[in-house]
Amino acid sequence: MTVSLGEVRAAAERIAGRVRRTPVVDVAPGLTFKLELLQHTGSFKPRGAFNRLLTALENGELGGQGLVTASGGNAGLAAAYAARELGVPARIFVPVTAPAPKVAKLRRLKAEVVQAGTEYAEAYQAALDARDKSGALLLHAYDHPEVVAGQGTVGLELLEQAGTFDTVLVAVGGGGLIAGIATAIGDHARVIGVEPELAPTLHHALDAGQPVDGPVGGVAADSLGARRLGDLAFEAVRRHTVESLLVGEESIVAARKELWRDHHLAVEHGAAVAYAALASGVYKPAGGERIVVVVCGANTDPSTLT
Amino acid sequence: MTVSLGEVRAAAERIAGRVRRTPVVDVAPGLTFKLELLQHTGSFKPRGAFNRLLTALENGELGGQGLVTASGGNAGLAAAYAARELGVPARIFVPVTAPAPKVAKLRRLKAEVVQAGTEYAEAYQAALDARDKSGALLLHAYDHPEVVAGQGTVGLELLEQAGTFDTVLVAVGGGGLIAGIATAIGDHARVIGVEPELAPTLHHALDAGQPVDGPVGGVAADSLGARRLGDLAFEAVRRHTVESLLVGEESIVAARKELWRDHHLAVEHGAAVAYAALASGVYKPAGGERIVVVVCGANTDPSTLT
Ligand SMILES: Cc1ncc(COP(=O)(O)O)c(C=O)c1O
Ligand SMILES: Cc1ncc(COP(=O)(O)O)c(C=O)c1O
Repeated sequence: MTVSLGEVRAAAERIAGRVRRTPVVDVAPGLTFKLELLQHTGSFKPRGAFNRLLTALENGELGGQGLVTASGGNAGLAAAYAARELGVPARIFVPVTAPAPKVAKLRRLKAEVVQAGTEYAEAYQAALDARDKSGALLLHAYDHPEVVAGQGTVGLELLEQAGTFDTVLVAVGGGGLIAGIATAIGDHARVIGVEPELAPTLHHALDAGQPVDGPVGGVAADSLGARRLGDLAFEAVRRHTVESLLVGEESIVAARKELWRDHHLAVEHGAAVAYAALASGVYKPAGGERIVVVVCGANTDPSTLT
Repeated sequence: MTVSLGEVRAAAERIAGRVRRTPVVDVAPGLTFKLELLQHTGSFKPRGAFNRLLTALENGELGGQGLVTASGGNAGLAAAYAARELGVPARIFVPVTAPAPKVAKLRRLKAEVVQAGTEYAEAYQAALDARDKSGALLLHAYDHPEVVAGQGTVGLELLEQAGTFDTVLVAVGGGGLIAGIATAIGDHARVIGVEPELAPTLHHALDAGQPVDGPVGGVAADSLGARRLGDLAFEAVRRHTVESLLVGEESIVAARKELWRDHHLAVEHGAAVAYAALASGVYKPAGGERIVVVVCGANTDPSTLT
């Protein structure tokens, strides 16, 4: 199964007015940031969530039971936000170990938060059970065509906003974002995935020739915490010959601090990963190369920025 | 003495490529932020600094002695940055009481930092003495035509970026920013100054019919710490019938936290002042009114955001 450019374009039309067209800023010669951290709820995730929900509404797939999902992170916030905006009930499953501030944020968005199990696998199972019992819609965080198509609208905007560029650096978790962007960008530029050494889903998938489970850890696990690459993402990265670069923990921490100190952007570790490839020298641009870095999330404790 | 629209336009041409055209973002129906906190050094101040320095270079007024100024805040950072970019020596006077992190930031920008006296009045006197002795150029933080014209380029960009809007809310210290913006915007929109109750330079000047010294204090004194409105600013606000709104300390603190929580923008207190007028209800927009808020500075300790 693949996601097409047409589906990304349809997503852009469907979610227009619901999501922000986030700005780009040229921060140095040849270097542009796409400020997706200024999206509603602080990450790109509402793009996919709106596309999935609006499509389900169009198709009459969304009953009175609304949606269920399992995430205390950006996917959960996006689900809660999109559901609230569309008047759809949202039940969000998180483990009992989910930090209180995250649960509070979800509740502020009017979601019903259900604490189930002690880790995400259990919360996810509880969400599946709830769907099976109630007929609610399951909102997957990345491996669903409408979610991938929605995230791809970041790429369409880049083509309009950033002029010509050679390369775009994108963080990879489950791969919904990079799959969408690769589909949108097509041959216009090279798309490179960047991942923490401690959570390299794309790297493992490329090595194994298919998505495989792997370990997940490190400072960015909060947002880049998928255990394996999504199947749709794998198709997309193969079709577009997307490479994976790995960055170490210290590079991620340093890049996040640099984004604050030099660029006045307060981001979470996962959103510093793409920039870390550049800042650490893991990615060395050619002379004159024009690079876009997607800065994708701001759900962070700002007291750890300095 | 007044600053003209022509001078603002000339400034825009002069400083193009040196300063960033900072993005705007539509954050709610009828509400747009101008993200001037993403300017080099984290505030709008490089606009005026570059315009002043480049004009002086054009006119052969800048000798080997470079510039002197007195500021450990955004004006000092901007002076140091612009000087470094133009290869001009910069000597920046701050009181011995200036916090070490600010001095370190200035030194990172290669400025020579001179500690003189225990408060800014004394540091400023030392800068004047140094100018008189050495022939260095004095860079005033706000009350100079080229500085006002430079800050006005924020207004020109707004006219291009934000479509039609009714009102723009701007923080006021010495008044360089609002004077420039009022000159640039002219009749296209209403320009409203917002100031802390504890440092109301514009309010006092409008009351007295001329700029007068007043007390300075409160959470925003760091950036909105001018003791009186500049003469150029007074001319400009009279010509453009700019009003002053006052916001209390608690409103400023709350607005800054709201900018972080709801918009993922980490700003200093002075840069939350304009938004505070809206968030606190001191400014009540009419139905359908389109408002721009200039979000003007990010030099802050992020650990105090939550
Ligand atoms: C800030 C941020 N960046 C990147 C990602 C990775 O997105 P994906 O799982 O689509 O690869 C996430 C996922 O939650 C995220 O929250
Ligand atoms: C962040 C910020 N906002 C507003 C101002 C006020 O500018 P002006 O003195 O031109 O009124 C300053 C001045 O330093 C500032 O640093």
